Amino acid sequence: MTSFDPPVEEVRAAVKLALAEDVGPLGDLTSSLVPPGGITAEITARDAGRLAGRACATEVFRQVDPTVTVAWQAADGDPAAPGQTLAVVAGPRASVLTAERTALNFLSHLSGIATEVSRYVAATGGSGARIRDTRKTTPGLRVLEKAAVRAGGGENHRMGLSEWVMFKDNHLAGVSIADGVTAARNSWPDRAVYVECDRIEQVEEALAAGADALLLDNMTADEVQMCVARAAGHDCLLEVSGGITLETVAEYAATGVDFISVGRITNSAPVLDIGLDVNDAPRASEEG
Amino acid sequence: MTSFDPPVEEVRAAVKLALAEDVGPLGDLTSSLVPPGGITAEITARDAGRLAGRACATEVFRQVDPTVTVAWQAADGDPAAPGQTLAVVAGPRASVLTAERTALNFLSHLSGIATEVSRYVAATGGSGARIRDTRKTTPGLRVLEKAAVRAGGGENHRMGLSEWVMFKDNHLAGVSIADGVTAARNSWPDRAVYVECDRIEQVEEALAAGADALLLDNMTADEVQMCVARAAGHDCLLEVSGGITLETVAEYAATGVDFISVGRITNSAPVLDIGLDVNDAPRASEEG
Amino acid sequence: MTSFDPPVEEVRAAVKLALAEDVGPLGDLTSSLVPPGGITAEITARDAGRLAGRACATEVFRQVDPTVTVAWQAADGDPAAPGQTLAVVAGPRASVLTAERTALNFLSHLSGIATEVSRYVAATGGSGARIRDTRKTTPGLRVLEKAAVRAGGGENHRMGLSEWVMFKDNHLAGVSIADGVTAARNSWPDRAVYVECDRIEQVEEALAAGADALLLDNMTADEVQMCVARAAGHDCLLEVSGGITLETVAEYAATGVDFISVGRITNSAPVLDIGLDVNDAPRASEEG
Amino acid sequence: MTSFDPPVEEVRAAVKLALAEDVGPLGDLTSSLVPPGGITAEITARDAGRLAGRACATEVFRQVDPTVTVAWQAADGDPAAPGQTLAVVAGPRASVLTAERTALNFLSHLSGIATEVSRYVAATGGSGARIRDTRKTTPGLRVLEKAAVRAGGGENHRMGLSEWVMFKDNHLAGVSIADGVTAARNSWPDRAVYVECDRIEQVEEALAAGADALLLDNMTADEVQMCVARAAGHDCLLEVSGGITLETVAEYAATGVDFISVGRITNSAPVLDIGLDVNDAPRASEEG
Amino acid sequence: MTSFDPPVEEVRAAVKLALAEDVGPLGDLTSSLVPPGGITAEITARDAGRLAGRACATEVFRQVDPTVTVAWQAADGDPAAPGQTLAVVAGPRASVLTAERTALNFLSHLSGIATEVSRYVAATGGSGARIRDTRKTTPGLRVLEKAAVRAGGGENHRMGLSEWVMFKDNHLAGVSIADGVTAARNSWPDRAVYVECDRIEQVEEALAAGADALLLDNMTADEVQMCVARAAGHDCLLEVSGGITLETVAEYAATGVDFISVGRITNSAPVLDIGLDVNDAPRASEEG
Amino acid sequence: MTSFDPPVEEVRAAVKLALAEDVGPLGDLTSSLVPPGGITAEITARDAGRLAGRACATEVFRQVDPTVTVAWQAADGDPAAPGQTLAVVAGPRASVLTAERTALNFLSHLSGIATEVSRYVAATGGSGARIRDTRKTTPGLRVLEKAAVRAGGGENHRMGLSEWVMFKDNHLAGVSIADGVTAARNSWPDRAVYVECDRIEQVEEALAAGADALLLDNMTADEVQMCVARAAGHDCLLEVSGGITLETVAEYAATGVDFISVGRITNSAPVLDIGLDVNDAPRASEEG
Repeated sequence: MTSFDPPVEEVRAAVKLALAEDVGPLGDLTSSLVPPGGITAEITARDAGRLAGRACATEVFRQVDPTVTVAWQAADGDPAAPGQTLAVVAGPRASVLTAERTALNFLSHLSGIATEVSRYVAATGGSGARIRDTRKTTPGLRVLEKAAVRAGGGENHRMGLSEWVMFKDNHLAGVSIADGVTAARNSWPDRAVYVECDRIEQVEEALAAGADALLLDNMTADEVQMCVARAAGHDCLLEVSGGITLETVAEYAATGVDFISVGRITNSAPVLDIGLDVNDAPRASEEG
Repeated sequence: MTSFDPPVEEVRAAVKLALAEDVGPLGDLTSSLVPPGGITAEITARDAGRLAGRACATEVFRQVDPTVTVAWQAADGDPAAPGQTLAVVAGPRASVLTAERTALNFLSHLSGIATEVSRYVAATGGSGARIRDTRKTTPGLRVLEKAAVRAGGGENHRMGLSEWVMFKDNHLAGVSIADGVTAARNSWPDRAVYVECDRIEQVEEALAAGADALLLDNMTADEVQMCVARAAGHDCLLEVSGGITLETVAEYAATGVDFISVGRITNSAPVLDIGLDVNDAPRASEEG
Repeated sequence: MTSFDPPVEEVRAAVKLALAEDVGPLGDLTSSLVPPGGITAEITARDAGRLAGRACATEVFRQVDPTVTVAWQAADGDPAAPGQTLAVVAGPRASVLTAERTALNFLSHLSGIATEVSRYVAATGGSGARIRDTRKTTPGLRVLEKAAVRAGGGENHRMGLSEWVMFKDNHLAGVSIADGVTAARNSWPDRAVYVECDRIEQVEEALAAGADALLLDNMTADEVQMCVARAAGHDCLLEVSGGITLETVAEYAATGVDFISVGRITNSAPVLDIGLDVNDAPRASEEG
Repeated sequence: MTSFDPPVEEVRAAVKLALAEDVGPLGDLTSSLVPPGGITAEITARDAGRLAGRACATEVFRQVDPTVTVAWQAADGDPAAPGQTLAVVAGPRASVLTAERTALNFLSHLSGIATEVSRYVAATGGSGARIRDTRKTTPGLRVLEKAAVRAGGGENHRMGLSEWVMFKDNHLAGVSIADGVTAARNSWPDRAVYVECDRIEQVEEALAAGADALLLDNMTADEVQMCVARAAGHDCLLEVSGGITLETVAEYAATGVDFISVGRITNSAPVLDIGLDVNDAPRASEEG
Repeated sequence: MTSFDPPVEEVRAAVKLALAEDVGPLGDLTSSLVPPGGITAEITARDAGRLAGRACATEVFRQVDPTVTVAWQAADGDPAAPGQTLAVVAGPRASVLTAERTALNFLSHLSGIATEVSRYVAATGGSGARIRDTRKTTPGLRVLEKAAVRAGGGENHRMGLSEWVMFKDNHLAGVSIADGVTAARNSWPDRAVYVECDRIEQVEEALAAGADALLLDNMTADEVQMCVARAAGHDCLLEVSGGITLETVAEYAATGVDFISVGRITNSAPVLDIGLDVNDAPRASEEG
Repeated sequence: MTSFDPPVEEVRAAVKLALAEDVGPLGDLTSSLVPPGGITAEITARDAGRLAGRACATEVFRQVDPTVTVAWQAADGDPAAPGQTLAVVAGPRASVLTAERTALNFLSHLSGIATEVSRYVAATGGSGARIRDTRKTTPGLRVLEKAAVRAGGGENHRMGLSEWVMFKDNHLAGVSIADGVTAARNSWPDRAVYVECDRIEQVEEALAAGADALLLDNMTADEVQMCVARAAGHDCLLEVSGGITLETVAEYAATGVDFISVGRITNSAPVLDIGLDVNDAPRASEEG
């Protein structure tokens, strides 16, 4: 297990669900019509990007047929070049073809996320600002997607609502920043307390309240810069969020914030194109 | 139930999984620190698009707290304008805020797909060609995503491997088109038999074999045009696939094919930005 | 709950599974093509028999659509005459039709068992011998089938391997009757200890060992008669089993045994034919 | 995997459920009272029939104890003669005996279906008519039962409501045949559209509407004959259904229809009697 | 499998649940920060007691990582001395440490129960009275706890409400003892019928009704003695229950009752302290 | 929802599991033998303690029969006096009695934990030290037990391995404190980093490394005192752990540490005795 791997049980459960929806009640009609026989095939990147989702793809082949072998030539987090062989798969033709689409759906979705993350990471250059995910993940896939974010060079924000405290605008309509932070610190002393700030006055209030971190939401880079200045000397992390794109991320990174969190790296990343190519001997002679 | 709705049990199961990953073992730490009290809130489109996923969002609120009400002002398949109120939510503040992100993740993901589909549909103009999805869906969400495709004006290809027969290149390495189609027809007389064709000779072979439909894969629009001409007079549907984009879809639609299937409408559609805005009275007076 | 009802959670789980396999990923294609509108329908026996499975049928309609109502006019265990209305169902047309087949599958399967049981019960006349089921049940439906046996006037043998002890021939190849019964009595003093006997000597051995009950397996009625005589005065129940049919059951019942257990009442009972008839107003005027 | 095998995950799930209901919370009380030691045993047909359910039986032994081996001497779809050894099982006595009943319940139920199907297939002689199942299956076992139908030489009708369209009388109370077929064709171009016809006028209407197949319900063989004549020259499959028995199936087969679907092959087939015989050395010497 | 082992599927399910709650969505953060490498470790009793839960602990390591090996040096039911090595574990450091706490939680909880049971068993000396559990078990762990009771030398009362009949005071408010016992005997002839008696008159009534066993509830040892005398000559088991402690159990055992059932052996037993000690070579040289 | 409530889905799942193991396949045999009729009953504390588990008990009655009502007269976290009515339950006799034991098992187990916690909290007097749980919880019940700890006035340590970082002795055999803390801080900047210290030198090392908190393990109160002194001026929480009992907790609390974590409050707390008393009218007149 590398730090990019999600827990094994999460992988097993997600793969089981995905296979159930693809295989269906009759099994793979088409593969059952094709003569038996073993094949080898290559999983190949068709585009440049960053690999993620290896554990899921391996598990897909295993659940379909434990006799299929998958030999990886790249690891989660590795860059992938167009045409690069990522793995060699060997096993019964029907099993390999039945598993193909589900395995590729995991790989291309998760590698798509890792790839997008790596672009944002590259764009922040040597600024020291780090790219983070959010809770804007695809329903049911959060654990796998957060592992893909790590594979892409990013970091994980909280996994969910019970991990740490974050007061957002909709909460602050019901409690003051000072009271909220105090209550949180008292109830959950080991958990980070974040305060979302839309305005500079909230930053002051949150710093005074002793928040661990501020989420600077929907501010311009200039406004962020002012917040960074204001927070200087406080033991308080600064994170910016809200509509940041590949075009604007460098500007925000240059402000000196600690983190930049981006919803679209998980909920809007296009897939990385990855395919499976069967290494076929001529059909007639092989099966004849 | 409209024809856009996925089966209720699929909705229940997907929502249960998504809430489990977001709520976590301690529940929503932040909401538990905010004073109790009822609120109303609006689910609002922040961008133009097409709505999908209503049933999922409603179910999220219901599973978190059955006393929360959701009054929809738009239906799946309806266009959404920036700033348009899609629904009004009312209930205990903590319940609404706990459910918020998961409900929005479903809505924005599925509406993102419907929106992308509607763009492709619009781009095919009055050509008669229809937009279809593929099996390139997000693992675990196929049923919901295929419903979103219908909400966007598209159609569904097969749900999975057991629904009908499709000979792709990797199968045709093991069996001839003629033998495959005959075997399929014999075993599964009511199920459609597709043959993927990369070259014009395969089209001839598949037409001769009596395939129900041809998947013309990775051809230029000109090549597709030739296939359409060749298939004239045959009772055989034609579908094109492979790398078709919003820029090229009109050109393919004009060839006279029946269907254009596009993987990226399900696996690479960016989300539609949808938010939840709490209608707050001033805090001090309300909770004071 | 009558004593015929299986536990509610068992009903919920079995219905959920059955609906999943019938409804499928797209839902009921046909019903979605039919105009909306409410209907009433009658669940009607097409043949004479004994009703069982009411709780399952009700649950099917509930899971498909909680607004559907089912008003029963007969209870589990009641006789049903051909043409008799068993229940009136009312609700949206699409919901009723989607649920129809699954509800009828439960009803006709379980009523088929109750009906077959009632035939055996009737055939034992006033003999005092009671009809029992076995562990030869349909995989996954044991709890429901055993409730149907009770509805038919029969009794339940053990639910499974952990409920009481039964030494069958394959066990007695490994341990003597005397040692087995002693060990069982010692380990599980409250649980019945059965010994399967194929020969009269085993009967003697088992009586001497103090078994609670003997399973007389594959004996003729005359042999059974001899065993009954031999067991007179012992506090030991006698049960016959093995190939007993409706034709031979009376002869065995007359021997004075306590129980007659019959595998085919659960694993080979034909269904009771039960249908659902929609009460339609003329289509044209209604849907205009 | 042969085309008779159900998907592996379906087998795993059904076996898990069946073992749970048989093994119970304490495990197999009786087997735990018998001395340890390895045995071999034979799974033997006690009657003539057709084998089905091998994958389930193997999985039962595997889930109880992965060290048990099962060597099959016949495959799903093979005829079985009375007394014929179907498989040899070897492993710890307690494990084999614990698994015995559940394994046999699957085998005898599914082989019972395959056997009944093979009788109908034989009775249709060289007519060309093919035997099909229906949705009248045992709740929870549809996928396995449909595989058994294939093993018996039959074919599968649709798996469930989402696979293709069938307008039955209860739907046609709400929509005309012409409108229904058009709507179906438009919404689901690749899915078969069936129309159930009770009367010859409906046949005409359905042929005119362009249905893919007609389900001739509850007609006499003469009426069916007339429908066959009427449908000549249309590209439309004909299927008869409704109360057809082994006695009447030949008569219907001779009419020239394509398919004969029979509910009782799945919901009323008696089991095929299959037993497990332990190969025992004399007890005294072996265990003494 | 010994008679102390719970069914394998129960073990698998309980372990899966326990690991899910401990491992969490990110996996073991700390172990992922420690250099890879293999270790061996010893599972050691820190206190005197009785071992139970081996199957659960083994399964924990297996589910975390199938390459971890566990070699047991003691069996369920064996006494454990302080400092005694119970098992040697070998495998990757991260896997062993991730599994450690969950494996120990099972072992120490179940061994705590076995230990407490063994104390009560010892305290009953040679009286012949046997110690039993109740339905007062930890929710979700009944099957495992009842196996631990057996490992401690105790016996199991019924597993749950469907296994046998017991009329308690709250039932007897609705039915007379005589009527209740008759109804039970008639409905469930093979299942034990218990009557809970608070007063000597109830004992008479229950003996007259032919109960299989009496549960003498909350009586003094003298009262129990009187009940034993009264029941002499009846084929009826006697069990005492209600507030019996290690201090008073011998006195009750001396009355001649058959069973003493004690809720606190399952719901209030303190854990047996068991730890895991890694056998480390010096860090610097090993990992350097 | 109070901050003592576990997430609703956790409650539903735990109750479902517990009812399955108690109700069994036949349902409550005894209750089915008792005449129908409505009853009221009181849930009553038999001993002094602290209430927890209300949500679970309510859910048990709801799952057994939604028509049963439960009116609470005390809340989680409230003290309970011997004889105090905690709730009034009303509904059908059979339903109330079927649910009784499972509801009480949850209540008495969780209230037992809350009660034990409250004793430790009381014993720390006005020291400012706070009582915490550990990961030494009952397998499968962690979430519910941690809520009970909060109801007892305690606090929760981490929920599991993925929530924050803790270097224990077995980890420190593989990495130095300085390297470990740096790696943790870098990978998981928002998550607390704990270091377990057995010796004063480790305390120095951990303070120098910038750990967020130290777990002082198995130290005497004097040693702890020295550590407190050494840590003065560092922004680092101090927690003691290891064999602390009700007798010694005050001494440790007086040292000035922030937290005292105690495994036995969750894994060895005896139950709080809670019973259900039916309010019966005389039987004859009521049911006659």
